[in-house]
Amino acid sequence: FNIALLAGDGIGPEVIEQAVKVSDAVAKKFGHEITWKPALTGAAAIDAVGEPYPDETHEVCANADAVLFGAIGHPKFDNDPSAPVRPEQGLLKMRKKLGLFANVRPTFTFPSLIDKSPLKQERIEGTDLVFLRELTGGIYFGEKGRRDEGETAYDNCVYTREEVQRLAKKGFELAMSRSKKLCCVDKANVLETSRLWRETVQAMEKDYPEVEVSYEFVDAVAMRLVQWPNSYDVLITENLFGDILTDEASVISGSMGLMPSASMGADIALFEPIHGSYPQATGLNIANPMATILSAAMMFETAFNLPEEGKAIRDAVNKALAEGIVTEDLADGGKAYGTKEVGDWLA
Amino acid sequence: FNIALLAGDGIGPEVIEQAVKVSDAVAKKFGHEITWKPALTGAAAIDAVGEPYPDETHEVCANADAVLFGAIGHPKFDNDPSAPVRPEQGLLKMRKKLGLFANVRPTFTFPSLIDKSPLKQERIEGTDLVFLRELTGGIYFGEKGRRDEGETAYDNCVYTREEVQRLAKKGFELAMSRSKKLCCVDKANVLETSRLWRETVQAMEKDYPEVEVSYEFVDAVAMRLVQWPNSYDVLITENLFGDILTDEASVISGSMGLMPSASMGADIALFEPIHGSYPQATGLNIANPMATILSAAMMFETAFNLPEEGKAIRDAVNKALAEGIVTEDLADGGKAYGTKEVGDWLA
Ligand SMILES: CC(C)[C@H](C(=O)O)[C@@H](O)C(=O)O
Ligand SMILES: CC(C)[C@H](C(=O)O)[C@@H](O)C(=O)O
Repeated sequence: FNIALLAGDGIGPEVIEQAVKVSDAVAKKFGHEITWKPALTGAAAIDAVGEPYPDETHEVCANADAVLFGAIGHPKFDNDPSAPVRPEQGLLKMRKKLGLFANVRPTFTFPSLIDKSPLKQERIEGTDLVFLRELTGGIYFGEKGRRDEGETAYDNCVYTREEVQRLAKKGFELAMSRSKKLCCVDKANVLETSRLWRETVQAMEKDYPEVEVSYEFVDAVAMRLVQWPNSYDVLITENLFGDILTDEASVISGSMGLMPSASMGADIALFEPIHGSYPQATGLNIANPMATILSAAMMFETAFNLPEEGKAIRDAVNKALAEGIVTEDLADGGKAYGTKEVGDWLA
Repeated sequence: FNIALLAGDGIGPEVIEQAVKVSDAVAKKFGHEITWKPALTGAAAIDAVGEPYPDETHEVCANADAVLFGAIGHPKFDNDPSAPVRPEQGLLKMRKKLGLFANVRPTFTFPSLIDKSPLKQERIEGTDLVFLRELTGGIYFGEKGRRDEGETAYDNCVYTREEVQRLAKKGFELAMSRSKKLCCVDKANVLETSRLWRETVQAMEKDYPEVEVSYEFVDAVAMRLVQWPNSYDVLITENLFGDILTDEASVISGSMGLMPSASMGADIALFEPIHGSYPQATGLNIANPMATILSAAMMFETAFNLPEEGKAIRDAVNKALAEGIVTEDLADGGKAYGTKEVGDWLA
């Protein structure tokens, strides 16, 4: 396998290093060979070549079998959201150019970490849901700008039926492989794009007669996610709603430092932890590498169709949690291991 | 005072009746006179005159000193979001025609109800925040439609500097009357309208040197609201973000059935409970009237500048909670009173 390796900024390089180590160990055990193709992205790429997603990086990604991504973002860009070049622009460009239209964001709990949830145990227990967020359309990519000498700003939200269909298809398929419950999240009582989403999904229902589909407004979902997260299974939604709701969902489990994600296109998929680049922790060997390592597990399972290899990684993570081989965020006053030591142990 | 009375649908009329009773009792005690002007809205208005916000209703509201609103929405409209006439359209039309640009949504806790929160006690304790949601602009009111024979849908999000300024002004003023902390919620790393919001608020900072302003992305706020809600004080945001976040905030306190709200314009303000029309509970004398009654308290305080009158109502509600004079949603296995009985007791 050729895997593009985009370490990015902050703790990105450190956690990526552990995921590489663990992936190599799994590859060796199961008789695969991985060639890693490192490439620049984020603030690191801006510093080096003035561009957060350079063409050379795109070439590496487009020709790889999968992309493993760390994190991007640097505080020097934080105070000026209108700066001409920002790491986030690289992210959006990468999603668009690689055609990564479906962002898969699971939220689940680890029994040993359930007390870290801000929710009461009886509310969070048993939560195991997946968001499919549309990632290359909507208001993120519509025409935007100013008129009236800068006094008026606009952003256009646009969706085509085809964009909804390909995302919804993944949603129905995922629901079929799980408990056959699909929730379509929209704001169809106000937005025309949401009405297109809803009618498109409604029309697809007949092709998946076993899937029980519900339609909920985004504001109602924002509530129920906090109240009864375990009432959800698979949720599909457009780009901006997905941005807000997947982040809301990520904190309810209390295991944000462990949550992996995948972004899938027609030809390639990218795997990354959902956490950010934590600049304050850079180089301190304290960042939790597990979310990135579990993203590598998702890569084996989803991109290479190798479930056993993925399971070997998951089992190792579960064992590390059970035996307390964890970084300080999970140490709870007990012994804390370094980023590298956790990676070594898991490998 | 002339008060337009829009009872609406479902439990609306029942809870409004209690708020009228309590308001009349307060008026009598403090020597005011209230003339109530009932008018049709919501599904009730569609049934009667084919329009959810008829012109006659608008006349009544526009000529009143304040509007007291129950709830709207009926299940017969729920399965078809593209039905030509829907109760929600009346709501949007009313907001626009009355110019109700600032929706004020407090979230606070009642010590006796804190165990109803889905959050752990240490997370929710001390939460006392207010959202100011822009209510007459943004993607709700921008041009929307279809092209390509219905295959492409679009919604336009538009904001002018002036719209941001008048909302932000209310935010700064509210912050000055509270703990002088203001959070501007946007998505300035992606949206042009958000960049306009941010630069406009930044430019206003110098007029309120005592207010400490922070800028946070909407996805980050969706997380922190669940993790550390008590770290917020006043938050300002655009229409759609406000829709999602105020509903998320409403459930964290566990006291949703008690949360009032106000929608303010240049000339008039409207007061309503944040809960919906609960069609299943209609006519059963079980709905909790406290959120509507506390909305009446907000009306005395905000629209009529009569803080003592408002406090009399709040004190009564606190006493009812302490003495267990509550509807079944709060009875916790103890005696449950009816909607009417709670209203009578409070009056
Ligand atoms: C950094 C930002 C542009 C991005 C987004 O909004 O998509 C991030 O929040 C995410 O969810 O991956
Ligand atoms: C009913 C709907 C149009 C409305 C909105 O989205 O504004 C509601 O959710 C609200 O928050 O008052």
